Amino acid sequence: MSCVEEVGPGTAEKIQDFISEKVSESGSDGVVIGLSGGIDSSTVACLAVNALGPERVLGILMPSATTPPEDTEHASLLAEKLGIETETIEIDPITDAFNDLCGHQTTGMAAANLKPRARMMVLYYHANSLNLLVAGTGNRTELLVGYFTKYGDGGVDMLPIGCLYKKQVRMLAEGLGVPPEIIDKAPTAGLWPGQTDEGELGIEYDVLDEILCLLVDHGYSTDEITSRLGIDAGEVERIGRMVEAARHKLMPPEIPKLR
Amino acid sequence: MSCVEEVGPGTAEKIQDFISEKVSESGSDGVVIGLSGGIDSSTVACLAVNALGPERVLGILMPSATTPPEDTEHASLLAEKLGIETETIEIDPITDAFNDLCGHQTTGMAAANLKPRARMMVLYYHANSLNLLVAGTGNRTELLVGYFTKYGDGGVDMLPIGCLYKKQVRMLAEGLGVPPEIIDKAPTAGLWPGQTDEGELGIEYDVLDEILCLLVDHGYSTDEITSRLGIDAGEVERIGRMVEAARHKLMPPEIPKLR
Repeated sequence: MSCVEEVGPGTAEKIQDFISEKVSESGSDGVVIGLSGGIDSSTVACLAVNALGPERVLGILMPSATTPPEDTEHASLLAEKLGIETETIEIDPITDAFNDLCGHQTTGMAAANLKPRARMMVLYYHANSLNLLVAGTGNRTELLVGYFTKYGDGGVDMLPIGCLYKKQVRMLAEGLGVPPEIIDKAPTAGLWPGQTDEGELGIEYDVLDEILCLLVDHGYSTDEITSRLGIDAGEVERIGRMVEAARHKLMPPEIPKLR
Repeated sequence: MSCVEEVGPGTAEKIQDFISEKVSESGSDGVVIGLSGGIDSSTVACLAVNALGPERVLGILMPSATTPPEDTEHASLLAEKLGIETETIEIDPITDAFNDLCGHQTTGMAAANLKPRARMMVLYYHANSLNLLVAGTGNRTELLVGYFTKYGDGGVDMLPIGCLYKKQVRMLAEGLGVPPEIIDKAPTAGLWPGQTDEGELGIEYDVLDEILCLLVDHGYSTDEITSRLGIDAGEVERIGRMVEAARHKLMPPEIPKLR
């Protein structure tokens, strides 16, 4: 029996109410969403259109030289299906500005994080100009293991599908009519060519979702999870360490207490 | 009698312990600080050097074309006094990349927010490459009224002086030996030429600090604050609204609750 629960139309409605409420509370005119052509951003766009109507949702496509052309096609396909306005902004000029700026030796991770942060800047540039909120596209699986960039794709005003494991996003996407070619392709953060989430995380999403649900939502021990899922204890411990290390990424910066 | 309390060497020690603890907990090799030549970043740099030693503190100067030359001189002066390594990175190439990118009409606020966000990217580029934490320079006054850019100067790993009102930062800076020319000049966020904090906030820091201390720390009513400080009720209410509107800026993005 799966620990991760089924989701359906009732879940979509709750999330849509949440989106409407946040836009209304903040006095904003709608939301802006970075459309990657992947399942997460496509699902958030569908939910936002159901909540607010297509005229209050702006989609921004932010390809780089390493973005597969099919992803851009999928993002355009979805936007057309939803009837939302889009803008396409190449982010390489922003990240390229760093090539000549910094004298220090850098790491692959430092360079990889530039793209999500440049995208955050583009999204807020539009949000600030057009009185919109930035709707993030992170799901619960990514948020728990820290598979996102702090102040990059993590730098948003709300996380509408932050309550859903990747498996649940897939269920919801099907119910919302996200095109099957978007649902069926391998998820990728698109930070370098050929990257896939599961390759980089070193685990399949279905197994990861189950481990996280048992570990975080139900507080099971490593032994219990190991025997229940029939997987290695070392693997459960590795995921546990990722969850610990990720905690700071969505917390406010710490401030000393003087008393 | 002032609501904002005196601070002294004991306060500096507590903050220094906090900095050491955060660096050690995270397994980092030190901190990186954006040095503006102003009192806040100078104070944080002094505290970090006291906590970690100069060799574990990297200062980054990030001037733009509108930065007054004296600010850059003050930042260099302080770094020299502390014996820390610095790097100077012009941020205009990053923000200029936006001029040609976005088709939409933009606002002054959208453009002004680009600089702090570009600086955040530069600081994390170094932090990620050199295994450092980003030490923010926001003080309690700025944080409470939201006088900072979300995911810009607010996008940091820790806020060592986030517990101190502006007036308290001044007291601490004097005790730490921050050069008087840095302490005595008018504070500015440096987002456009001639900008001063007090001009933009429409209130003097000493009065603002007192209002915030009475309102937020002690829960006094508008009437009580008005009579105690002898200022207009409308002014106290204006500050109260700023505090309300600022709350989201340092909170994690909201996630819907499904049950």
